[in-house]
Amino acid sequence: MALEGQARADSARDWVPSRVIIEGVSPEVDGGRLPIKRTVGEEVVVSADIFTDGHDAVVAVLRHRPVGSAGWAEVPLVFLNNDRWTGRFTVTRQGWHEYSIQAWVDRFLSWHKELSKKHEAGQPDLTSELLEGATLVREAAERASGPDADWLRERARFLAGPESQSARAWAGLDRELVERMARYPDLRGLCVYDKVLSIMVERERARFGSWYEMFPRSAASEPGRHGTFRDVEARLPYVAGMGFDVLYLPPIHPIGRAFRKGPNNSLTPGPNDPGSPWAIGGPEGGHKAIHPGLGTFEDFDRLVAKARGLGIEIALDIAFQCSPDHPYVREHPQWFRHRPDGTIKYAENPPKKYQDIYPIDFECDDWKALWAELRDVFLFWIDHGVSIFRVDNPHTKPFRFWDWVIKQVWDKHPDAIFLAEAFTRPKVMKRLAKGGYSQSYTYFTWRNTKWELTEYMNELMLGETAEYMRGNLFANTPDILPEYLQVGGRPSFMIRLVLAATLGATYGIYGPPFEHCVGTPVRQGSEEYLDSEKYQVRHWDLDAPWSLRDYIARVNEIRRENPALHSNRNLRFFHVDNDAMLCYGKSTPDLSNLIVVVVNLDPYHTQSGWVHLPVHDLSLGSGPGETYQVHDLISDARYLWHGDANFVQLDPHVSPAHILQVRRRLRTERDFDYFM
Amino acid sequence: MALEGQARADSARDWVPSRVIIEGVSPEVDGGRLPIKRTVGEEVVVSADIFTDGHDAVVAVLRHRPVGSAGWAEVPLVFLNNDRWTGRFTVTRQGWHEYSIQAWVDRFLSWHKELSKKHEAGQPDLTSELLEGATLVREAAERASGPDADWLRERARFLAGPESQSARAWAGLDRELVERMARYPDLRGLCVYDKVLSIMVERERARFGSWYEMFPRSAASEPGRHGTFRDVEARLPYVAGMGFDVLYLPPIHPIGRAFRKGPNNSLTPGPNDPGSPWAIGGPEGGHKAIHPGLGTFEDFDRLVAKARGLGIEIALDIAFQCSPDHPYVREHPQWFRHRPDGTIKYAENPPKKYQDIYPIDFECDDWKALWAELRDVFLFWIDHGVSIFRVDNPHTKPFRFWDWVIKQVWDKHPDAIFLAEAFTRPKVMKRLAKGGYSQSYTYFTWRNTKWELTEYMNELMLGETAEYMRGNLFANTPDILPEYLQVGGRPSFMIRLVLAATLGATYGIYGPPFEHCVGTPVRQGSEEYLDSEKYQVRHWDLDAPWSLRDYIARVNEIRRENPALHSNRNLRFFHVDNDAMLCYGKSTPDLSNLIVVVVNLDPYHTQSGWVHLPVHDLSLGSGPGETYQVHDLISDARYLWHGDANFVQLDPHVSPAHILQVRRRLRTERDFDYFM
Repeated sequence: MALEGQARADSARDWVPSRVIIEGVSPEVDGGRLPIKRTVGEEVVVSADIFTDGHDAVVAVLRHRPVGSAGWAEVPLVFLNNDRWTGRFTVTRQGWHEYSIQAWVDRFLSWHKELSKKHEAGQPDLTSELLEGATLVREAAERASGPDADWLRERARFLAGPESQSARAWAGLDRELVERMARYPDLRGLCVYDKVLSIMVERERARFGSWYEMFPRSAASEPGRHGTFRDVEARLPYVAGMGFDVLYLPPIHPIGRAFRKGPNNSLTPGPNDPGSPWAIGGPEGGHKAIHPGLGTFEDFDRLVAKARGLGIEIALDIAFQCSPDHPYVREHPQWFRHRPDGTIKYAENPPKKYQDIYPIDFECDDWKALWAELRDVFLFWIDHGVSIFRVDNPHTKPFRFWDWVIKQVWDKHPDAIFLAEAFTRPKVMKRLAKGGYSQSYTYFTWRNTKWELTEYMNELMLGETAEYMRGNLFANTPDILPEYLQVGGRPSFMIRLVLAATLGATYGIYGPPFEHCVGTPVRQGSEEYLDSEKYQVRHWDLDAPWSLRDYIARVNEIRRENPALHSNRNLRFFHVDNDAMLCYGKSTPDLSNLIVVVVNLDPYHTQSGWVHLPVHDLSLGSGPGETYQVHDLISDARYLWHGDANFVQLDPHVSPAHILQVRRRLRTERDFDYFM
Repeated sequence: MALEGQARADSARDWVPSRVIIEGVSPEVDGGRLPIKRTVGEEVVVSADIFTDGHDAVVAVLRHRPVGSAGWAEVPLVFLNNDRWTGRFTVTRQGWHEYSIQAWVDRFLSWHKELSKKHEAGQPDLTSELLEGATLVREAAERASGPDADWLRERARFLAGPESQSARAWAGLDRELVERMARYPDLRGLCVYDKVLSIMVERERARFGSWYEMFPRSAASEPGRHGTFRDVEARLPYVAGMGFDVLYLPPIHPIGRAFRKGPNNSLTPGPNDPGSPWAIGGPEGGHKAIHPGLGTFEDFDRLVAKARGLGIEIALDIAFQCSPDHPYVREHPQWFRHRPDGTIKYAENPPKKYQDIYPIDFECDDWKALWAELRDVFLFWIDHGVSIFRVDNPHTKPFRFWDWVIKQVWDKHPDAIFLAEAFTRPKVMKRLAKGGYSQSYTYFTWRNTKWELTEYMNELMLGETAEYMRGNLFANTPDILPEYLQVGGRPSFMIRLVLAATLGATYGIYGPPFEHCVGTPVRQGSEEYLDSEKYQVRHWDLDAPWSLRDYIARVNEIRRENPALHSNRNLRFFHVDNDAMLCYGKSTPDLSNLIVVVVNLDPYHTQSGWVHLPVHDLSLGSGPGETYQVHDLISDARYLWHGDANFVQLDPHVSPAHILQVRRRLRTERDFDYFM
């Protein structure tokens, strides 16, 4: 169909109000004020309640287009039940896309339905009905052109002609007539849904990716030296070897001297303590400068290029706050709040004082210049080849700043991806996502039990939230060493890795502490690391025998090879009759790639249970004796499973999880089965 | 607070975008496109998600006013939890009312919160903080006038003055300062919710009333005669005696002769058969005329006046369809659809034909004149003292016609009440309600089991549906003799009466068949009455000994005397450990009137069970030994109940239900208890 919306609306203008109601449209974020999100190649499934009075036939179409296109693509909406209709389309181009709905009472289809009933009921005289149909078809011929017009005109003549009633009735009920008539509907009475809804279509990496966070200054090959971009370059094969797509670096800018923090966040640093990278800005520059200890812009650009060569993108941390030594403080004191004595206000959370941090005053009188400058920070690093930004504490800056700045950047650079590091209240996190953030940190880091994981993942990955929010499941961060990892030893790291990497299409770890299974907090009850890299340079022996690097590499390889793991909305939990075990699956829409994950959540003990798969829904055969093969992609073991209940036992000290590729039986030859 | 919204919005115009988010506003019907409903004196409870970035204090107000008022009334929104806020107001004037929300970051309250924390933490130097506060108070003084301005100016001086830090800190934390400052907030950064939502405020009868439907032509005092309005007049004391508020008459217009239906819907009427009142229009006139057999306009006006004198309103049936003899057919043939041979199309539901009915074509070219004429039908009867209309089959006419006509009528006559007789799909029924219908027929008529009643009533009376839809629970209608009443005998009528009258603030019966326990259908499997009054004149002996008139009178008296039964949204179901028994309660907001109903749903057998009341929530005392009195208002029996579980047994052949007024113990004197 290639009907023009504007023409329809015009033709409807002086007509009686439409008899069709369109309501309950989904997805629609905050009444259509804010966009949903997709990546290129993903489907959008739209549903709505659509109905009219009486018994006439309704036709409804879903219209969509890249913003700025002249015409609309149209796909039919199909009736489900209880006045609910649904339709779907795939977005194929990065950038803004939009969709809406139109529906109308179709006079021809209403006539067709009635004729069909009367014909079936054997009503003897259909003269009047056939003449009415002839009129409708003749009118459509007027709207048509070319061969369709001729065809319809001829059919109208036939319906009103001298042939037998039976022949004419069949000509009226004919499928080809229905198809041709559908191209030229009578659109008086068209109902145009009063909102055009938008979609932010991003590149694949916004949906699927494995993140590795590390401190460049701890990347030196020998202990005691401050690491550089050159050292990070040397570390790239290690990171690529583990299969990561994104290498995320904490702030790389000059670090303030005033009120610098020492090791373990102490207030009394030594002269050689490097300070926290989040105390941004020194005499050497601010958010557009590089810490001299890390190297030069050439070094940085080279790192970005080398990483790209290994399939890795560099992500930067953008923390909009300043150390007292930041150039903004001298050059734009009006961008900060001042105390009555004229000094700039430092950050506080009474009774705590953060004298090393000056918060930016986003509401200052000079806000327009300030906002433009902060936007330019993103554009600056985009010019240096960076297009992934992890934004620090966005929930302490105005929502409408993010709405604005992300749109400003993204409209020019739709490759830009923004990750919101907002560990805060649910509605605040959701609002940041609605405002344009591609990805969000989540509560996954603290969800350990079967009930917690099931509830939270269902909230995050299914339903309305998934339309605009994508979790990036970090297993740990420099700020968060979860209690589970403090007490669970090496198995707990394997468990959390598998969960993060298979529950989430995007996940991350902070290494090397993660792969080295570092679980010691600065003190009991704290989630801070002991001797945290936030305040000091550390050195890691990458060849430590207890390292999980090979395990991580295998898990990331499995992720890459199995498209089922590249999405979130396909997550589905399955029953296991043991609360210490979690089972879930993901599959491609055509079920050709089906992954079932079984995890022992208990890092101490072997657990076992019966896993229940909905074999019918998963097309694994129907009969109870039907067998299928599950292939553990971690251990390479293969098992034959039967029916919907199968026994699984997992020893956390050997392998706490199965990542099972499920293979259907293709055919049986004598006593040997082939599996696809 | 008496702040002007427009002034606020203006002052905010050139300022930085607001830091506050307002979303998830409830109630909000279809994104604010359609109104919620209330009656005069009812509360509106509004909730919303409101938050800002960071930790600053937010203030939010709910603004409301009768549409057309110059100013807004404001009530505070109060924080609940998880960023949800709520506020409430009462509508006191009939007509359109509107509401919206405004919120802002309050700099003074943010300062106050911080000072309070620092003061509690014993921070030694508060010099800077107190000077900041002085500035904020001085700025508020500029916005204030009169004594407040002077008071605030003085307080600002004190905060910045030479007094001790402790004295000045207390002056900053002072409650009176907070109250005075709240009157003059700094509204730069105000967030104005982008929708103004509307409320249709109706009179009490739209919410609470007992309806009685009867055929005037069956009201003659002697058998065989066609009843008249005079006979209905004579019947008024009978109807008033049973305690009804609304007497609803099927169409009173001239009845068509062409294709008239005979008894039991036969196609071969005798010459004296009166026809169906819904085949509207004859040579004597149409929707603005009276059937000559019923009397004159004087008779009608007299009936309306007499009824009013007994506290009864006459409701008319408006059925927008025509018999072939209707004057519209001659005078406005363009208002109907035509067949190719020039004749007008009669109604059909293939293979059935309804040749006695011509549907009106609401989409005809002359629709504007048609719609105006149909509106005038309502206005015509309003001029004759009728303001309650039961609209026949509104779901077969365009929704937007109803939206338009109800607004047209209601804007001039806000006493008008419209009841939608739409027994159709749920979303269609809801859309009619959203479009302005005061009341709706419901599926109650077919909901018999405990599960069905609980589910359906919770859907209808709680949650979003209750914001715009009010069920009128009819126990039977001339079209519906439910199977339950066909088989259950007299107890089934008592059961359905109690359910309708106590579940619904508005309910109705069609009599005399109802009070006479008439349960014989035209044939097995049909819900049509045998010898239905729709097609013939009947005569009823009002003094039949099996009549339920006294039982009905008592139930309606209980309804009138107990304000708890005047609302729907206060319905709450309680547990009974017997699926054949249903228990629920209603109370006034202050719990001073509390009614608990226990019904045996089984019309054949005695049933018993333990009724569980949430005694704590209902303020019936806390201790397990606490007693309260339940007074069965039907039988006048009183029982002492203890704690939350009490035994009830009901014999349907004696009395299938308790309507219990619950009385708390006021005091105990020796061994005698007084109950309020």
